[in-house]
Parts: sequence; structure tokens; C-alpha cells
Amino acid sequence: MSRLGTILEAVRRGELDLPEAERQIRAGQYADLGHSRVDHDRLERNGASEVIYGQSKTVAQIQEITESLLTGGHNVLVTRVSGAKARRLLTVFPDAEHNPMARTVVLQPVPPVPADGLITIVSAGTSDQRVAEEAKVTAEFYGNQVRSIHDAGVAGIHRLLAELDGLRQARVVIAVAGMEGALPSVVAGLVKAPVIAVPTSVGYGASFGGAAALLAMLNSCASGLSVVNIDNGFGAGYLASVINHL
Amino acid sequence: MSRLGTILEAVRRGELDLPEAERQIRAGQYADLGHSRVDHDRLERNGASEVIYGQSKTVAQIQEITESLLTGGHNVLVTRVSGAKARRLLTVFPDAEHNPMARTVVLQPVPPVPADGLITIVSAGTSDQRVAEEAKVTAEFYGNQVRSIHDAGVAGIHRLLAELDGLRQARVVIAVAGMEGALPSVVAGLVKAPVIAVPTSVGYGASFGGAAALLAMLNSCASGLSVVNIDNGFGAGYLASVINHL
Amino acid sequence: MSRLGTILEAVRRGELDLPEAERQIRAGQYADLGHSRVDHDRLERNGASEVIYGQSKTVAQIQEITESLLTGGHNVLVTRVSGAKARRLLTVFPDAEHNPMARTVVLQPVPPVPADGLITIVSAGTSDQRVAEEAKVTAEFYGNQVRSIHDAGVAGIHRLLAELDGLRQARVVIAVAGMEGALPSVVAGLVKAPVIAVPTSVGYGASFGGAAALLAMLNSCASGLSVVNIDNGFGAGYLASVINHL
Amino acid sequence: MSRLGTILEAVRRGELDLPEAERQIRAGQYADLGHSRVDHDRLERNGASEVIYGQSKTVAQIQEITESLLTGGHNVLVTRVSGAKARRLLTVFPDAEHNPMARTVVLQPVPPVPADGLITIVSAGTSDQRVAEEAKVTAEFYGNQVRSIHDAGVAGIHRLLAELDGLRQARVVIAVAGMEGALPSVVAGLVKAPVIAVPTSVGYGASFGGAAALLAMLNSCASGLSVVNIDNGFGAGYLASVINHL
Amino acid sequence: MSRLGTILEAVRRGELDLPEAERQIRAGQYADLGHSRVDHDRLERNGASEVIYGQSKTVAQIQEITESLLTGGHNVLVTRVSGAKARRLLTVFPDAEHNPMARTVVLQPVPPVPADGLITIVSAGTSDQRVAEEAKVTAEFYGNQVRSIHDAGVAGIHRLLAELDGLRQARVVIAVAGMEGALPSVVAGLVKAPVIAVPTSVGYGASFGGAAALLAMLNSCASGLSVVNIDNGFGAGYLASVINHL
Amino acid sequence: MSRLGTILEAVRRGELDLPEAERQIRAGQYADLGHSRVDHDRLERNGASEVIYGQSKTVAQIQEITESLLTGGHNVLVTRVSGAKARRLLTVFPDAEHNPMARTVVLQPVPPVPADGLITIVSAGTSDQRVAEEAKVTAEFYGNQVRSIHDAGVAGIHRLLAELDGLRQARVVIAVAGMEGALPSVVAGLVKAPVIAVPTSVGYGASFGGAAALLAMLNSCASGLSVVNIDNGFGAGYLASVINHL
Amino acid sequence: MSRLGTILEAVRRGELDLPEAERQIRAGQYADLGHSRVDHDRLERNGASEVIYGQSKTVAQIQEITESLLTGGHNVLVTRVSGAKARRLLTVFPDAEHNPMARTVVLQPVPPVPADGLITIVSAGTSDQRVAEEAKVTAEFYGNQVRSIHDAGVAGIHRLLAELDGLRQARVVIAVAGMEGALPSVVAGLVKAPVIAVPTSVGYGASFGGAAALLAMLNSCASGLSVVNIDNGFGAGYLASVINHL
Amino acid sequence: MSRLGTILEAVRRGELDLPEAERQIRAGQYADLGHSRVDHDRLERNGASEVIYGQSKTVAQIQEITESLLTGGHNVLVTRVSGAKARRLLTVFPDAEHNPMARTVVLQPVPPVPADGLITIVSAGTSDQRVAEEAKVTAEFYGNQVRSIHDAGVAGIHRLLAELDGLRQARVVIAVAGMEGALPSVVAGLVKAPVIAVPTSVGYGASFGGAAALLAMLNSCASGLSVVNIDNGFGAGYLASVINHL
Repeated sequence: MSRLGTILEAVRRGELDLPEAERQIRAGQYADLGHSRVDHDRLERNGASEVIYGQSKTVAQIQEITESLLTGGHNVLVTRVSGAKARRLLTVFPDAEHNPMARTVVLQPVPPVPADGLITIVSAGTSDQRVAEEAKVTAEFYGNQVRSIHDAGVAGIHRLLAELDGLRQARVVIAVAGMEGALPSVVAGLVKAPVIAVPTSVGYGASFGGAAALLAMLNSCASGLSVVNIDNGFGAGYLASVINHL
Repeated sequence: MSRLGTILEAVRRGELDLPEAERQIRAGQYADLGHSRVDHDRLERNGASEVIYGQSKTVAQIQEITESLLTGGHNVLVTRVSGAKARRLLTVFPDAEHNPMARTVVLQPVPPVPADGLITIVSAGTSDQRVAEEAKVTAEFYGNQVRSIHDAGVAGIHRLLAELDGLRQARVVIAVAGMEGALPSVVAGLVKAPVIAVPTSVGYGASFGGAAALLAMLNSCASGLSVVNIDNGFGAGYLASVINHL
Repeated sequence: MSRLGTILEAVRRGELDLPEAERQIRAGQYADLGHSRVDHDRLERNGASEVIYGQSKTVAQIQEITESLLTGGHNVLVTRVSGAKARRLLTVFPDAEHNPMARTVVLQPVPPVPADGLITIVSAGTSDQRVAEEAKVTAEFYGNQVRSIHDAGVAGIHRLLAELDGLRQARVVIAVAGMEGALPSVVAGLVKAPVIAVPTSVGYGASFGGAAALLAMLNSCASGLSVVNIDNGFGAGYLASVINHL
Repeated sequence: MSRLGTILEAVRRGELDLPEAERQIRAGQYADLGHSRVDHDRLERNGASEVIYGQSKTVAQIQEITESLLTGGHNVLVTRVSGAKARRLLTVFPDAEHNPMARTVVLQPVPPVPADGLITIVSAGTSDQRVAEEAKVTAEFYGNQVRSIHDAGVAGIHRLLAELDGLRQARVVIAVAGMEGALPSVVAGLVKAPVIAVPTSVGYGASFGGAAALLAMLNSCASGLSVVNIDNGFGAGYLASVINHL
Repeated sequence: MSRLGTILEAVRRGELDLPEAERQIRAGQYADLGHSRVDHDRLERNGASEVIYGQSKTVAQIQEITESLLTGGHNVLVTRVSGAKARRLLTVFPDAEHNPMARTVVLQPVPPVPADGLITIVSAGTSDQRVAEEAKVTAEFYGNQVRSIHDAGVAGIHRLLAELDGLRQARVVIAVAGMEGALPSVVAGLVKAPVIAVPTSVGYGASFGGAAALLAMLNSCASGLSVVNIDNGFGAGYLASVINHL
Repeated sequence: MSRLGTILEAVRRGELDLPEAERQIRAGQYADLGHSRVDHDRLERNGASEVIYGQSKTVAQIQEITESLLTGGHNVLVTRVSGAKARRLLTVFPDAEHNPMARTVVLQPVPPVPADGLITIVSAGTSDQRVAEEAKVTAEFYGNQVRSIHDAGVAGIHRLLAELDGLRQARVVIAVAGMEGALPSVVAGLVKAPVIAVPTSVGYGASFGGAAALLAMLNSCASGLSVVNIDNGFGAGYLASVINHL
Repeated sequence: MSRLGTILEAVRRGELDLPEAERQIRAGQYADLGHSRVDHDRLERNGASEVIYGQSKTVAQIQEITESLLTGGHNVLVTRVSGAKARRLLTVFPDAEHNPMARTVVLQPVPPVPADGLITIVSAGTSDQRVAEEAKVTAEFYGNQVRSIHDAGVAGIHRLLAELDGLRQARVVIAVAGMEGALPSVVAGLVKAPVIAVPTSVGYGASFGGAAALLAMLNSCASGLSVVNIDNGFGAGYLASVINHL
Repeated sequence: MSRLGTILEAVRRGELDLPEAERQIRAGQYADLGHSRVDHDRLERNGASEVIYGQSKTVAQIQEITESLLTGGHNVLVTRVSGAKARRLLTVFPDAEHNPMARTVVLQPVPPVPADGLITIVSAGTSDQRVAEEAKVTAEFYGNQVRSIHDAGVAGIHRLLAELDGLRQARVVIAVAGMEGALPSVVAGLVKAPVIAVPTSVGYGASFGGAAALLAMLNSCASGLSVVNIDNGFGAGYLASVINHL
């Protein structure tokens, strides 16, 4: 029975007076921890626990939310953590796993729900790897099997074609590229799987912080492709996992 | 056996001389019809036949490609067809179905491969319906069952919440919105399914032709969401079908 | 009698010769303190004393203007003060109150004109709190009662709906959000009060320094909402106070 | 008793079974009319009935929504109506009032709730008047007294200063300007009332469709001012009315 | 002897007085025809006669410049000519050749200087052909042999790979693409010849009039590639000819 | 004696009571003609009568303002008048002079104040002439002697150098260019006179409506140069006249 | 006699052979100092010596060019010099004058050509003073008398009106403003002198590094105004001097 | 015989089984070194070895790729190397040559294929030299003879004209400029050679990081010119070499 059903049942039984029932129904399903509201309903609603975006949070804030999530029986994924922050978190949580290239910290006391399909992450250049790695850590955190293909940019198309069999085995493909952002278009023309395109801020001059790659991907002449924000490896990995668990 | 395998087998048997084999392998798998190259390999490679983007093609060109596809045993979907072009096509292909709101023409001699899951398309305002309709026609063309929820913008959030059960039954959700483009973020926070966000050019002033909605969707604070080009209802419907057929 | 009326009266009485009267009328109502002109007429004209924008001023300049305002019987609000500047100001003005998150310094010898209504400030994410806090300090500086609701972003809409009663008690609402900037649209659809939307520079990639959130708010499909500059917590707090004192 | 309270009361009395109660609570409060959902709850929630944005709607659609609103006992304001559409609507609704400059059609069987304060609308140039007029029609539709000051741009500042007394009598000021968009900044420096700034698309070249005026207003050095979308006279008039009815 | 040498020689011989010599040296080398200055020195200076950009010129102006160039012994290429203008020019110059797709009119009484190498023009989609055709007409006008490959976009990369031998025979390659503009990057990774990339305005939404394709080409990860303005088929054809004549 | 002095004198003499004096001083110096306020003080304040910007005004409005200005003894310059509007104005004002290329209508009953110096207007291409012509008509309207140099773009720099003597005789230079907007930089490097740079919207593709030329001029490496809005021939002619009359 | 005349005279006399004459005529008039070419002809051509833009030059480079200019009998103005660079230059050139706010270093062995008129520089806010100061140092360097009016932004328009007499005495006005950039428009509406508008990068958020102020100035509804680059105090001071010396 | 021909020959002879042949044909021609794939086929395919873009690579990564290339018998060019990285590389490869201004490191055990023609690199200002130097190092690395002309901006056009003979001797010209980016247009109007335009990020304010120069070059009114990315000296040098080796 849903949480709302339980409340209504209590109302029917006369165990709950109306103002209290109304407050509970309106109040929703989270716990307010002061600086943040931990969304304990998220797992039920979205099928996945909350993730901590570490960019603008202090170590103390991350630690507190982490503890709250662990107490609630959730696994913890912290993204965009600097090396310094990560080292301080590791002293508090010795079981945590730090991936410096992906800038993530992971605590996984509960085994994730496994998915059968393969997620393949293909990236264009060496500098795009940190975004690809964030996608990989995220997808694995949610129980997916991941295969990475690095340095397969379109300027040497044969390097990509050589991986075609591998690409075609994937249930979901993530294609990561900066600069001219052409890789996802070429990949989507070669596979049946849905392609999640991730533009990166790799480049200079008229790259305008990744805008060139972003626009290229949005205007792709290939079908079966959609786009996430610049450098958003987490978002791509999460979405790939959602699709892979269907 | 793949087409390449067949060629190699013929080489081994001595039935094909080397220059011809090399030419065939390099030449790939399409038929050149002069102004266009009909990609007969696409069905095998991408799992779906080519679609005719009608915007900048003449009626004569559309007719010729349509005939070529029909001859090849493919179904035909023409997008971005004006009313005038559509009427002329209908005189040539009386079995074609014209959807004026979606601006599509469909010829479907072959039944599409059906998918079990439901695709739900939710749109924000009355003016966004033509894009939502293009997505719907596309998804149905590829054998999907579609449910549409119109006029569910975030300024009256209870209209969206009232459809929550419907939204949660979907295997894939397409969320279409112009103006501030907030709908996909709210929807993605409420469902487990992957959400394909489609910004539209509906709006004025600082909408800048849909750029405002596009940016909002790319920066969504919700997870499980990705974005296609402004007004790209076809792309969203196609991708939703790819995911729904997994 | 207005200042201009006084001058004209003196002219009529012959107590003021014409060139001097003309000079006084033209000259207006401020005192030139060298690097700045303290606008002593502002309280009468706009109903509020001048505020010191601390961003690009030296500590010496801020100190001098502060002293001038205090001498004139005004309260003092300094905004955009770094921690280092604030600490040096506190040694000069021990009664000053420093709010590090809001980056403000306040000196309030005179009690402000109180307003009856409540100003509610709702912000989307943890990182938006510093802007919300600047709005709060500003509104309180001008005698308003303020209530803050943090971490109520649209990706978990139930967290916002749970605060609906609180939101509806407000006479003026300030809604602060970065990233996709959807919060003010949703809030304005739920309340009768005017909503002041504040985009923040929180985000990355296609956020373009807050431009995405700004555009979303300008294109809101909800009514009863207007927008101030990116990160302009002060402007929102000031305007909310003006409305609340009507 | 609120609608939710009524449902709960019925549950307590056993007059409503749980599934139906759950459905009703979740379903919210609107009537689905096919192409649109008329938001009959809006008056209670936002204090004002829905308004019909006429830009992209057919005459048939506008007529149908108008009839639905009239039946529901609401007044009707249609904005962005072309002359041709307006003439056709007038044949159906002979009591409707068409304002060609404002591009509005109004049907007002119910007298609006009057507000005491004065709303003053000041515009910079002749070409800005159509936006100012839309704001005026909107504010009057909601029961406000409006005063218009035309052609008071900053290049001849004495024309504005001559209206100072009039400006200072206003409870709310709307300032409309295209080109360099300086008028709201000057006005906000002269009055105590809140100022709603409306950029217009009047201009050419580096005006970029009103973006120059919009940016100027967002960056105003004056306080007590906020901004709505380019050419959004309706939004300004609506917000002014909300503030004026506080 | 150069024109300047001739003048100096005349000075030395005393056949030219100093003021006249100074005037002639400063005056340079063109003939003023009123509305335009026909640059008769251009052939010597740049190795090619002037070309008439027809976009904003009247038929009368084009006719007059054409006659002036013909009289000077030059061939004539008019670009960006509408069908209506072209038909009127053909009645005046019956020997002219009109290419409606390229929107060019050509008069070629003098055989151009032939070049040995082949220029290959590859374009991505059907709609890009008009730009490719302008490049082709231009290159042929200057005496080059041209080969066109249409509809070879990256979404079906095998169609491009099938043309690899043809591409590699070219001395200069022109790659034309709209939408995501990926074609030139892929081509430049496959050939030794210099690649001139031409972005087109083909696309919609976030294509922003060809800006997406332009940015993609400028940020190409491939080397040996440079870019001309959006839709500038003429510029590409001209530059290819310059390189091919080296 | 100034107008203000006259009022004060009347106050001193007791001929004017204080409220009336205050009203007059505040009211300033214009006459309200309903849709427009004719600024009769402008000649005294700015040294030049008002000019009618015809773009968005009806013929009736232009006629009414024209009559008001003529009655006030002013000359009349109407800019941005379409051919159709101009023809209708000429039937009302047979003495008016219409310049179709400049899109101006001029009525000059009063001889303008002549200036000694020469204004030279140099433009880059044939299509830039309409902007140059607007500048010319404006400068002549204010009594200046003007010299025009057409078709002197930087791609054939000798055509410009040939006019060097002419350029150096000018007291003020106006340089008009679209496309890459390089002309003003080259000109400013060659002359002592101030150079007013006018970008035009001539161009296509990455010209972005003249933005490319505008940016080039703002970033000029030459000194002694300033810029007006895109296509603003009037503004350049007016400013040149102001400088030339110093 | 001009330099070119001298060469031709030598040719006529047979004192100069032709190749050498041709070389000299073509070569022009500068001295190549390795990393830079000191333009010794500039004083004659433009009426002013070269100025050293210090931003990206090393102290050694600045020193070398300074010495070369001093040797050539020129005064030296170095702009955009950091404090550290300036201190090192002062040890080499003890007579140099360093203005830290303007970031300039001046060496003036030769008295500049004095101009009679007054240049008035009015700036909007305290933070705009550094740009105003650069303009002031530049104008004084070229022999102009300068008057500065600080902190006269449009939010307190009476502060500007009080300086009206002073403004009207100026022969040229420079108006400096960041944020909404409205000051030049208001000033140009009040004076007869030409107004040089200087946008500054002062502001935040939607100021976009001064772009908002720049656009406002380009779109000014006032006449007699032109614009230089963002923060270009030097350019404004230089141009004001050029005009003031006419 | 091509590599593909060899494989097919082996198939025909029965020396290669089909699956292996298919894998080899698909696999292409590179060696995977873990973090990077060294493209050993590139020399054959593009006529030039891979170059190491050093910006975002660690010293360890650069060293490893360098060793791999040296082992393969290739020369090594590393671009965008900071001084610190370069010094560490020099300790490992004592024969390497570091150019601090160009930020390159070169190892050239194999003499490059020489080209007969001259490449001339002309740059506008002192600050543009680092980009020009990167182009020079690149062109020399590939066996070209290079001539540099510095400080030849268009504000002193005679400095450029003086180098005309030198410019006209070039087989390919590279023109480098920041700020208004006018130099390539002027140069292309003076020479027969193809001109490669390189915009630089030199400038401030409305330069927008080099976008102004980039747009100017794309909109050039001169023919025979194409553009590479902002600051892309390497790309220009590489392309110039490709053309020069034709």
C-alpha cells in the first residue's frame, strides 16, 4: 500500500484526525536536515537514490548528507569532488572509493540492481576521458556493465570503424566529444542502440566553452540521438542506466 | 551471413575478381538515384528505414524517393510537408495519410514491428501540440502505442499532477515545451522512465526562437533526461521508439 | 513645503537673488564627498537611503561613505563585501554585523520602518542560498519580516508543495534559482502574491553564467512574476520591501 | 472548508471509498475541454481568471475557450489578436471590446475587483505605445485606474521631469522603452513606487530585437525595479494589478 | 615593365611632369564608372577578374558592369542572381549561361587558364547542393575540372567511404555541409589534399542560420582544413581554383 | 535671459504666483500634440530641431508632426520613409524633396547654418551606398558641404589610396562598410580628421545582420575613430555636422 | 615638399636610379626595430605620435620602444601598465609620471600643441573612474584642458542636472558608464557638443562584461553621440582631442 | 598493392580465413597504446604524422606518445606546451628544440620532405607574434621555407605596402590578426597566393576573445581567403604546408 493509501486508511479508521492527515499529505516525503532536504522518496519515485553534486558543497556538508543517506540505507555517489575534498572524505569514510579522473567518491554498502545489457562509452580525444570516466563510474554505480573506447575521434575514422562490432553489442551508447562534436553523429549512423551525446568543454577559441560541440550534437543529421549538458558525464551515465534497466 | 561475408565468400570461391570485390566492399550499401542516395542498408544498420525530410525538397523529389522506398519494400514517412505539398502527394499516393497538424505524410504498406511499452507525450501549451503531434505520428509509424497529454504546463502544476498515474505507466516519456521550458524538469522528477525533452520555438521576445527553452532543458536539475533540437518532434519520436523496442 | 518651494518663497521675499536661486534649483540635492556624491535626497525621493555596493570599492572608500551616511543619520548596508574587507570594517565599526554567506555588513543605529506583511524567499538548491541570504539581509534591513525556504527545486516538486501554506501566507515572494531556473514559474502558478524571480549563476556548461536561468524566468508562462539581474539578491530584497511597504 | 478538507471529511464519514478519494486528491481541479484545459481553480489559487494568449490560436479555439470561460462566470481577456481575428470574434461576441493598438479583445460581464491606487504607465517613444496600451488594457481589465504618459524618452529628459508629480502619485509605475532602454532606470531614481520595466523590440541594428533594452533594464543602477519579457505589456499590467491589489 | 616603372621611366625622360606623375602613382589602377569602380588591375594583382555579386544590385547595374568588363576583355561571372533577374539578363546577353540551382550567370568569351588538377566537391545533404553548385560553377569558370559527390553526409558514413578513391584523386577538396557540419572533419581525416569547408544555412532550431555548422568546422579536430563564410560557395570555388593553379 | 531666468524674474516681480512658477519650471519646454511631444526646446538645447524617424509612424502621424514643426519655423527631415509613404507625403507637401536611395523626405524653408569644413563620406561597396546617402542628406540638411567616395573597399586598397588627397581635405570623415567592416580602420590610419564609422547590415551568413562589421569597428587598432549603430547613416551625418560646426 | 615629391624630384634630376626610387616609394615611412616598427610617419599622417599599448608587452619591449620614440623627439604615453611594470619603468625613466588609477606612464619632454576648448568627462559610478581617468590622462597628454565629473549616474538624475552649466561649457563631452549605460543618452539630450560614449565592464551577471552598456549606447535615442570599445578610455580621450584641435 | 588488396589476395589464396579477413578489414590501421591510439596509418593517409596537442596532456603522457612516435620513425611536434612542461621534456629528450614564444617542442631525427615555395606569415601586432610563431614552427617542421613579417597592422597601411614585393613572392600567405582582424582582407586584395587567415584572441572588451576578428575574416570582401580557429597557428602552418607541397 502506498504512503498516501496508509494515511487515508488511518483516516478511515479514525486513527488520524483531519488536520494532521491534511498536513501529512501536503508535507510530502522528505526529511529536512537543515541546509538540505534529503529526498527519501526519490528511490521510490525515480527508481534511484539522490546523488551529491559536490562542486559547491563544503566537506562538512558532503559528510553530513553522506551520513544521512547511509543511515537511510542508500548507496552514495558524490560527483565533482576535488582531490583535496576527496582525500578528506576518505579519512572519514575509509571504505569510500575515489576516482581522481572522474572526480567521484563512491560508497556502496548495498549491491546495486544489476542490468543485463552493455553500456558502451566512446570518447573522441584524450582530454574527453575525464567526462567519459564520470559517465562510467555513474553507470557502474547503478549496476551496469560498461565498456570504454577512448581516442576514437572522427579525424581518423578507421579507429572508430575498427570498434564497430563492439559498438553494435551495446544496448546503450554514450558518445563523448569536444571540439567539433561530430563523433555522436557518426556513431548514431552506425548502430541500432540509442545514443546519448555528451559535449565537452575541450577545445579553445571558437569552441566557446563547449558550445560548438553542443550545437553540433543538437543539429545532428543522424537519428536516435539526444544530448545532455556540456561535460555532464553523470547525466549521461544516469540516463544510460535508466534505459538499460527498462 | 552479412553482405560483406557474402562478398568474401565469393572471393574465396573465385567467383569474384579482386578489383570488383574491392569496389563492392568500399562502395557500401546504397543506391544512387541521382539527386539522392537511398540508403537501403539503413534498416539493417540502424533498425529503421530512411525518412524523408520534406522541408527543402520539391514534390517531384519527394515523389521519386517515395517510389524508390516503396519499391524497396519500405514504409514511407515524410516530415515537414506543407499543406500544398501534401495535397499534391495525396493525388499521387491515394493511400497516404496526411496529418496537417504534424505536417506529415505516411504510407505504411508493411505493418511495423510492434513494441509493448507505452510512450507518453506530454506538452506544455496549445501551441506546442504541432511538435508533440509530429512525435506521435513518428512513434506510431514505428509501431509504438502513444498517449498524449496536452496543455499541462507548469504554471498550473495540478493539471500535471492529475496525470501522474498516466505518466508513470509510460515506458518512455516525451516532454514538449516552449517558453521557459520547465516541463521536462518537473516531469523527470516524477517518473522512473527516461524523459526526452523537446524545446519548441513557441514564445516571443527573449525566447530567441526557442533558445531559452533549449537552455533550460540542458541545465535541468533533474536526472534521467536528455534533449533534442528545437521543434524536433520527429527526433524525439524516433528515439523514444528505439528505446521502447529495446 | 518642498525644497524647491522654499527657494521660490525666498525669491519672492527678496531674500535670495536670482543667480543664486537659479544655481540652487539647478544644483539639486546632494553633497559631493570627492570620490562619491552622497545622495542625501534619496530617502525623501525614493523612500530609502543609499546602499554601498562594496564590490569594487576600497575599504577606505567604504569607510568614508559609511561615516558620511552615519553622520547624516542613515542606516548603512554594504553589499558584496569579501571576508577580508568585512573583517577590516568590523575593526572600525565594532557595532556592524557581518553576514559571511550574504557577504553583507550592516550598521543599523536607527530602527527601520516596519512592514506588516511577510516576505518569503524560496530557493532551489544549496548553492543558491548565498543569493537568497543577500535578499534576506536586505529585506530585514528595511524592516521586513522574512521567511526562508531552502532546497525546494522542481526536480522534487513535493518538497515545494509541502511548503504551500507557508508560501501562500507571504505578501511578496522571492524565488531564487540557477540551472534551469524553473522554480519561479512553478511558484507563481501557486500563489496570489507578486513573485520576484532571481536567476543565479549556479550551474555549468550551457548555463552560461546564469543566462539560461535568466532566459527561463523572462519567458515564464506564469503571470505575476518579474525578474532582476543574475545573482541580484539585493535588488530582489529591496523591491520586495518597496512592495511590502505599500 | 477547502476542497481537500471536503474530500477528507467524506472519507471520514465513509461516504467516499479510498481509491476514489485518492484519485480525486491527485486529480486536482480543472476541466479538460479537449484542446485546452480550462483552469477553473486559477481564480482561487492566483486570484485571477485565465487569460487567452491569442497569438497562435485559431478563431475557433479562441471562441470555444471564451464560451467556456463565460459559462464559468469569468471575464475574458484575449491578447495578441490580429485585426482579422478580432473582427471575426466581434461578430460572435457583439459585446466584446476590441483595442486595435493593444491588439486585445475584452468581454467583461462581471465588474472587476477595484483597486484604490493609481498605476502610471510611462513610455519612451511613439512606437512603444502599442506595448504600453496592452499593459493599460490589462490593468483596467483587473479593476485598476491607469494613467498613461507617452513619448517621454530620456533624450529629452525635461519631458519626463515635467510629469514628475504625476509619476509620484502612482502606487505602481510601468516603464516601457525600446532602443537603449534607459527610461526605467531614470524613472526608478525619481519615485518611491515599485517600477516594472518593459523592454520593447522597437529599434534596429544592434537592438537585436529588443535584447539591448532588456539587458539595460536588467543592469539598472537604480533600485526598486524589475523586468518582464520583451514586448510583454500584458505581464506588466497583470503584475502591476497584483501589487496594486495588495 | 610594371605600370609604376613606366611612370617613373616617363618622369626620368622628362615626358611627365611631377604633379601628374604623383597623381598617377597615387591614383592607382581602376576606372570609375559612377556607381562602381571596375578594378581593371585586379587580373594582374590577384590573377583573376572581378566578379559581380548580384544580391543587392539592380539588373541595370549588373548589365552596365557586365558590359564594362566585356569591353575590357574579361569573362563575367554574376553570383546570387534571382531567377527573375537572370531571365532579364539573358535577353540582353543571349550567350550567357544561367544555372538556376547555383543562381549564377556566366559569360565566357575568353577561354580560362586551365589547371591540371581535379577539384572534388562533396556535399552532405540534398539541400546543400545549391551551395555546392555555386562552388562548382565558380571553379569551372576559372578553368578547373570539377567532380561532385552529393548526399554523402556522416549519418551514413559508408556512402562517403565508397567515394574514397574519388576523393583521394582530388588536388583540392571542397566539403559542404549544414546542420552539424561534421563532413569536412571526416573528409580531412581521409585525404592528403587541402580541404575547404563550407558551412551552409541548412537546418532549423539550434542551427541558428548555419552558425552551428560554422563553429563545428572551425573547431575541427582534423588538420589541413580551413573555413569560408556560411553559404559561400563562390569563395570556396575561387580559393580552390587559386590553389589548383599553383 | 534664459527661460528659467524669465520665470524667476516674474516671481520676483510678483507677476507669477508660486504654484504656477513651480509648475512652469518643472514642466519644461515642449508642446504635447497627443501622440507625440514636439520638443520646441531642442533647437536651443541641442542646437538642432527634432527629426522625424519615419519607420514606424503612419503617414498621418508624419504629416501632423511635419505641420507642427513647419508652424514652429523649423526645417523638417523625415528618415526611413518607404517609397509609398514618401509619395503620399509629396502630394501634401509639394515642396518636399524625396531621396529614394536615402529614404528621406526634406522640407527646408529656412536656410541652414552653413559650416566651412568639408565632410567626406567614404563607403566600401555598392550596397553600402543607401546608408552613405542617408548620412549625406542629413549632413547637407544641417548646412554642411559633403563629398562622397563610393566603392572603395579594402579588397582593392589602391582605389582608396587614390582618393587620399580628397580624404585628407575633409574636416570630418564618415566611413561606411558592411561585411568585414575594415574600411574605417584603414581610413583612420591615413587621416588627421575624426572618423565616424558606420557598420551596415550588408552581408550574409556570419555577418549576423551587421554585427561582424560593428565588432570590427569597435575593435579597431586605429585611433581617432568612433562608431554608431548598424545602418545609422542619420546618426553619423548628424554627429559629423555637430563636429563640423564647432 | 612631400617625401614622395622629394623622391620624384631626385628621379627627375637623375640623382636616383629607378629601382631604388621604386623601392623607396613602395617602402613607406617607418623604422623597423625588430619586434616592432616605430611609425615615424604617424605624426605627419595622423597628427599624433604613436602610443604604446602596454597590456601584452614586456618591460623590456616597452623600454626599447620608449627610447626609440624619445630619440625621435616624440612624447611617450604608455597605457594599460600594471603597477609592477610601471615601477620598473620609473627606475629607468625617472622623469616619467605614473597614474595608478589610469594605469598610464607619461614622458613629455616636448610641450603638446594646446587646444582652446574644454573637454568634460562625466562618469556614472565610482568604479567607472579608472576608465574616465585613462581618458583624462590621454586628453591632457595631447594638450587639452579637461574637467571631470564623477558619480553622476542616472539613478540620481539631479546630480547630473546640477552639473548642466559645466557640461554645456564643454566643446567635447566624454560620457563613461557601465551597467545599463544610460548616461551618454541623457547627456547627449542636454548638450550641443559631440558626445563620445565609453561603455565600461563595470557590472555583473547580465552585464556580460560590458556588452549591455555597449548595446545601450549604440541604440541611443539621442543624437550627436558615438561609441568606442568597452573600457577604451584612451580611444575616447584621443578622439576628443582630435575634435578639440579642429 | 594497398593493404586491403593484400588482405583480399590472401583470402583468394586461401591463406586467410574469412572471419579473420573480415576482422582485419574492419579493424583498420592503428596501434592502441592504452590512453591513446597512435595513428600509424596517418602518414600514408594524410601525408603527415600525428602531432601532439600538449594543452591537456601530462608530461608523462606526452613523453610516452613521443617515444612511441620516435620508435615508429616519425618526427615529433608538440604544441601548446607550457614552459614548465617543456623544461621537463628537454631533460628526457636532450635533442628536442623548445620555442618558448611558439610554445612548441620539436624532435626531428628524419629530415622533412622539402617544398620549393615560400610561405610568408604576416602578423598585425606585437601580441599576435606568438600565434604567428606557432605557424612558423609548424611550417618549418614540415619542410617549408618561411618568412615572417611582424607588426604590419592596417592602421599604418604603408608598413604593409612596403612589404608588398615580399608578400607577392610567397606561394602561400598566412595572415594573423586580433582586434578588428582586417589584415587578411587587405592582404588578400594584394596577392595572387591563397591566404590563410588566423584570428587571434588579442584585444579586449568587444573583442569577445577573438570572435570579432574571426567574424571579420569570415566576412571578408576579398577572395582567395579562408579561416582557421582563433589562435590556431598550428592549423594555419599545417594547411600552408599541405598547399605548398602540392
